[in-house]
Formats: sequence, C-alpha cells, structure tokens
Amino acid sequence: MRVELLCTGDELVTGLITDTNSTYLEARLFDLGIKVERVVLVGDVRADITQALKEAASRADVVVVSGGLGPTADDFTLECAAVAAGVPLAEDPRVLQWLHERYAARGLSPNPSALRMARVPQGAEPLKNPEGSAPLVLMKLGGAQLFFLPGVPREFRALLEGEVLPRVRAALDVQPGRTYRAFRLLRTVGVPESELDLTVAPMAPRHPRVVFGFRTHAPENHLKLMSEAPSQSEADAALAAVEQECRQVLGRRVFGADAEEYAAVLLEMLRQAGATLAVAESCTGGLIAQQLTAVPGSSSVFIGGAVVYSEKMKSAWVGVPTDVLDRHTAVSRETAIAMADGVRTACGTTYGLSVTGYAGPGGGTPEDPVGTVYCGLSVPGAPPRCERISVKGDRDRVRLFAASHTLEMLRQHLLAASSLP
Amino acid sequence: MRVELLCTGDELVTGLITDTNSTYLEARLFDLGIKVERVVLVGDVRADITQALKEAASRADVVVVSGGLGPTADDFTLECAAVAAGVPLAEDPRVLQWLHERYAARGLSPNPSALRMARVPQGAEPLKNPEGSAPLVLMKLGGAQLFFLPGVPREFRALLEGEVLPRVRAALDVQPGRTYRAFRLLRTVGVPESELDLTVAPMAPRHPRVVFGFRTHAPENHLKLMSEAPSQSEADAALAAVEQECRQVLGRRVFGADAEEYAAVLLEMLRQAGATLAVAESCTGGLIAQQLTAVPGSSSVFIGGAVVYSEKMKSAWVGVPTDVLDRHTAVSRETAIAMADGVRTACGTTYGLSVTGYAGPGGGTPEDPVGTVYCGLSVPGAPPRCERISVKGDRDRVRLFAASHTLEMLRQHLLAASSLP
Repeated sequence: MRVELLCTGDELVTGLITDTNSTYLEARLFDLGIKVERVVLVGDVRADITQALKEAASRADVVVVSGGLGPTADDFTLECAAVAAGVPLAEDPRVLQWLHERYAARGLSPNPSALRMARVPQGAEPLKNPEGSAPLVLMKLGGAQLFFLPGVPREFRALLEGEVLPRVRAALDVQPGRTYRAFRLLRTVGVPESELDLTVAPMAPRHPRVVFGFRTHAPENHLKLMSEAPSQSEADAALAAVEQECRQVLGRRVFGADAEEYAAVLLEMLRQAGATLAVAESCTGGLIAQQLTAVPGSSSVFIGGAVVYSEKMKSAWVGVPTDVLDRHTAVSRETAIAMADGVRTACGTTYGLSVTGYAGPGGGTPEDPVGTVYCGLSVPGAPPRCERISVKGDRDRVRLFAASHTLEMLRQHLLAASSLP
Repeated sequence: MRVELLCTGDELVTGLITDTNSTYLEARLFDLGIKVERVVLVGDVRADITQALKEAASRADVVVVSGGLGPTADDFTLECAAVAAGVPLAEDPRVLQWLHERYAARGLSPNPSALRMARVPQGAEPLKNPEGSAPLVLMKLGGAQLFFLPGVPREFRALLEGEVLPRVRAALDVQPGRTYRAFRLLRTVGVPESELDLTVAPMAPRHPRVVFGFRTHAPENHLKLMSEAPSQSEADAALAAVEQECRQVLGRRVFGADAEEYAAVLLEMLRQAGATLAVAESCTGGLIAQQLTAVPGSSSVFIGGAVVYSEKMKSAWVGVPTDVLDRHTAVSRETAIAMADGVRTACGTTYGLSVTGYAGPGGGTPEDPVGTVYCGLSVPGAPPRCERISVKGDRDRVRLFAASHTLEMLRQHLLAASSLP
C-alpha cells in the first residue's frame, strides 16, 4: 500500500511549528508494515494545495491530508479538494447538526464562519470529530483514498486512532502477500552509538529477517529491531531470537525496552528493593531530582534533594566538612563522597548520590577542566564510591551526561547487589 | 525567490526522527522575507529522490537538499543528483584532500567508504564542512540552484549559516522590487493565548504593514510581529510603532524580546539588584533549581535549592515547624510560607521561593484537588506572600506552570520594587 502525507499551513513552512503530526503517523503506519513514501508540506496557497493533492493522489493508494479544515479565512483545504476532484462544495446536513450540537453544549449557536466547516466536497463522507468542530472527511480522488484531518495534534491523533488507522488495517488484512512485522526498542545507556553499531553489526548476517536501526536520544542510545516475515508468528520468532542475542551481548547496559523510561525503571528497582534515595547536586543543579520526581509516585522512594550551589550549603545541608572543601575544593573526589554520604545521612535514606563538577562555560582548573564531573554513591555496609568523568560539549550536555552517569552508578550497583548469591 | 526544501532519509518517513532542520531553515529564510513554497520528505529510495529533485528544480529558484551525503550504503543523494542532471559522478580532488586532512588529524586514513564522499556530480562545486566529513555541494539543475547539505543538525546549521544563507542574502540584494521585513518576538508569561490575541487584535487595522503571529511555548506565549515595506527603514519604523503599542498594552507581562530566555532575564534582574535567591521545592521537585542553574553564571545569584519531598526534610532543611505540617498539612498556604521563609534563612539570601502542591495523578483533597499548588515568596522587610493556583493538565504541565508562576511572583516583585519612587 502506497501512502503519502500532505500537511498544509503557513506555520509549517515559515518555521513557526515543527510538523510532529507526520512523525506520529509515520511511526504508527510503520508499525503496520507501511513505510510512508513521501511527505509534502505546503503553505496556505490554494494553487499549491490543489496541485499537491492531485500529484499525491496520482501516485499513492492512500493520502492523509492535515490542516486547513477550521473556520477561519485561511482554512480552504476542502475547497482545493473540490477543485482537484472537479466537484462543487455542498453543505452537509450531518456536519451541520454536529456543529449545532457542539455549540449548543456550550450554550452557543455556531457563527457564520463556524458553519463554513459544514461545506464538504460533493460525494465526500464526513465523520464526527470527538475532540473538535472540524470533521474528518473521506473522499476518493482518482484511484486514491484521501483522508482530511484537522492539524491540531490532539484532534489529528484522535481521528487517526479512531478512524483512519482501523480503515488502513482493514484494507491491509485483505491484501494478498502482505508482510508481517514485529518490533522491539532496546534502550541502553553508557554505550556510544558507534560501539552499539559495532557490537550489533556482526549479528546481522545471522538474522536476515531483521532490520537493525539506531536512535540517539542523549544520553541514551536505542537499538531498534524490526523483523519482517510472511506470517506474524514467524516475525515474532525472528524478533525473539535477535532480541535474546542482543540482550546477551549488551548485558546490563540495556535498561529497558519499548516505552520504558530510565527514571521510572530505576525508581521501580528501588521500590522493589524496599530502598529509598536522596541526592546532593552541585553542577547538575536539580536536574537529577527533577528527572526522578517527574515520575508519578516517586515520593515513596525519593526523599530529598539538595541543590548545593554554594560551599556554605554543601556544609549546612549535607554536612560536607569545611576542611574538606578547603583542602580539596568543591569539585573533588573527597567533596563528592562527603556529599553522597552527607545527603544519605541527612535524609536517612538507603542510598545517597552526589554530583559536583564544572559544567562550563566558565570555571575549571588545569587538572579538572570544564566538563570534569565527580559522581558519588553512598551505600549501606560498604565504602562510598566516586567516579570522575569528562564530558565534551556545552553546559546542557555536561549536566545531562553527569546526571545520567550518576544515576547509572546506582542502577549498576542495584543490579550487582540483586545478582549476588 | 522561490525556495523549496527536500529532505531525504528513511528515518524521516518512518517516524524515527522529526524533521527539525526544515523548521530551522524556514525560520531563517522567513527572516529574510522568504516563505518556503514546499517541503518534501522522501525515504532512501533512489527513484524517489531523483524524481523529487527534478520536480523541485523545475518549480523553484533555490532547492536546499539535506541528508544522504555520508559514507554508508544508504547515502546516495549525490548519485541521484547526477542522474537527474545527466552527468557522471567524479572524484573531486579538493574533497579528497579535506577527507585525508580530517582523518589525519585523528591519526587515521579514510577507509574506502569514507572516500565515497569525494564523489560529486561532474561540474558541481564542493565546499568544506567545518563540522564533519561530508562537504556541502553546490550544483545547477535546470534553472535552479541546488545546495546539498548533510542531515546531521549541527553540520546542517553550520553550513547554512556559513555558506547557504549568505549566498541567498546576496542574491536577494540584487533583486528588484524586493520586500524588506523586520521582526520582533515579544515573550509573555501569564497571558493565555486567546487573551493575547484579543488584546492585540484591535491594533491590526492601525498597522497595515504588520503581520501578527502567535506562538505557544508553554508556559509562555509569544507574540511575533513582522513588518513588510518597500525599504528597510520603513519596515523598521512600522515595527517600532507596533512594538511600542504592544508593550504598552501588555505591560509587565512582556518579560523579554527575541532570544531572551525567562530564567536568564530573571537572574539578570537579581544580579543588577545585587540580590541572591534560594528555592524550596516540593511538587516541582527541582524543576525551578534546574531551570535557573541551566543559565551560565547563575551561581553568583542562586545559592541553594532544597527539594523537600518528605515532611521530614521540609523541617530539617528549611525549618518548617512540625506543628504547621500537622495542623495545615504539607500542601497549604502556611507550609508554603514557612518553606519560603525557611529556605531564605537557611541560605542567607535576599529572596526565598517555595512551591508545594499536588502534581498528580494521585493525591489531592476535596478542597485542594490535583493541580492545586501553593507558591510562596519571602522578601526582606515585608511579610511573605503566598498565591494558590489551580493548573489543569497532567503532572508535567502542573509542574511546569507551578514553576513558572512561582518565578513570576518574584519577577513582578522586582519590577514593582524597582519602579518605586
């Protein structure tokens, strides 16, 4: 099935909005085994929209069009569709009724510009939009099935999931010789993309049904595995085999699969261990605390975070001795360890983490230039640990990788602890 | 000048990557008065790329092509360009030398796949890429000037700014009857988009040379003003007039213009006032501290942040009396005020901010349902203040708006204080 997307709107060609609707739809179609052939973005120009509609319909089986269905003067996608099909626009009584119902629910009646939304190309089929006023419109042009959707992401997605994708799936099910696919996203941290590639590349010849893909989502790198086969069971089996092998070579650096997020995974590990956590941050400035507390329910595990951006607060909140600061400076192994131990004691938690370093652009010393970060971990019944890392890049990147490395020290500790005999 | 963009790569049509290169380029071109006519995305399919190149060149004066210039087997954009132009690929000695130099700098010599990057369409002009191996390639196709850029955003932007945009600007300067434009982005906080629209709409008839645009960048809303005129001085004058009027009606809700970011603006106000700041966060969990410390140099103003995710730490770090917690609960006006006062005292700062609330999805009470947040401000020489807000939306949104509202209490206080006689 050949699918093309057409997105209309001045905001899409003037840099005001990035077209994320297409990304969303492409991913959903790819899960069905369809690779979108072409995406076209045009501004609010009647001739351009009409021409793009004709071109797409001449090439594709399905064209998903978004934008330009609303009530305002620059909404004229359906007008262009009517011109392309050589039919007039006609007021559709069903849409008219939906509009009146929708406005009545708010105690209003639709104004004349809202009523424009009831005008659809003759012969087209409108479907109710559960999230907004402008209907989804289905229409044939040449041999192609066209779907017209509003560009508002919430409405776009609701209509895709509720109406468009089920129709595409039904059409696929009756296609002979279709390809079945299965997917897995393996999420890793601490593995550079080039290393991930080198580690996985030798497997490819043994898994001819699998396509390997990589996605960098700093500080993480993700491995995307997709198997293709003439039946779903064969696709599933091919995926299971490659996934097992990948997990074997990547080991504990895989922290999750598919939609599993790092912070949620770590918090769940702590919860299952009956453990609690506190964090003392200097150069990451609250980033770690923020990442952890973004997860619903984190308060059962995360007790407190001290953003100690001054020497005074390093001593006051997490008990770093002033002579440690005087002798070793705030950016040092000794201070990191005192911070991790100190925040663990202050909060009475099972674990304590700490970060201190030079995020830049200013600061740093010849021995510890910008990008140097000391990450500390304090655990019960064993000496505290500190790791020194050097991160290349700007302030944001240093903070991001420092936060990730620190959390990863704890995750690796929990993995090692749970695998002890 | 008619400009089209063509972006190639399977990752762009399978939902793996959102095309942000185009958004960036569109905005930069729009600043020059150029509205991109069409953006086309195609996968790594030779026939599709070749066809799309021919079509774009037949319509446009300038086509910016990105992606498919690298060393791997799926990089064949220049091959397609050669086919479209009916010329062979030829190894370019300049590119060859750049590649050898680049690899030599790392003590390597280029492998055969890297050397593929030296093969460009006969007659095309390669330009050195300061950020990567693949060169920028300039070439004519029909009446159109084509620019081929790598898709890696860092390289794409560097080559755009360094080579492509200066050439576009030079070509515009010699065009007769061109339109001159001037821009201003006014950044507001605390103004819903619909209110911004209603406030500004009545001005439009008085400023016929100005286009008003809106951009939501939660929790901020931005007003984009663009003037068009037959000369730069007229465009500048029209912009200055409308900007003044907008600033008058929007007043202190405008916190910055163009590239000015909220946190940096607030920190600069504090710096100029010789003031320091500390923050005690509960439901925002470090988000405020993180936003402030993301700004280089923030350590001269921001002293400390306490992420007090438990009652115990609210008392231990910022001195909230246990009887306040017992009588009023952790989410209350009294606790917010004690937190703001307490963190200010603990850190010895000029100002203290605090946030406590229910970010959801769990928690809340009948009186204070999920989305309720108490924001506190402690100042020298006046009683502390607390504002209660109700934020609709998910956990991320509640946290985002709670952080913004709290910071904005301080900014408004500083503005009021500095305007006193």
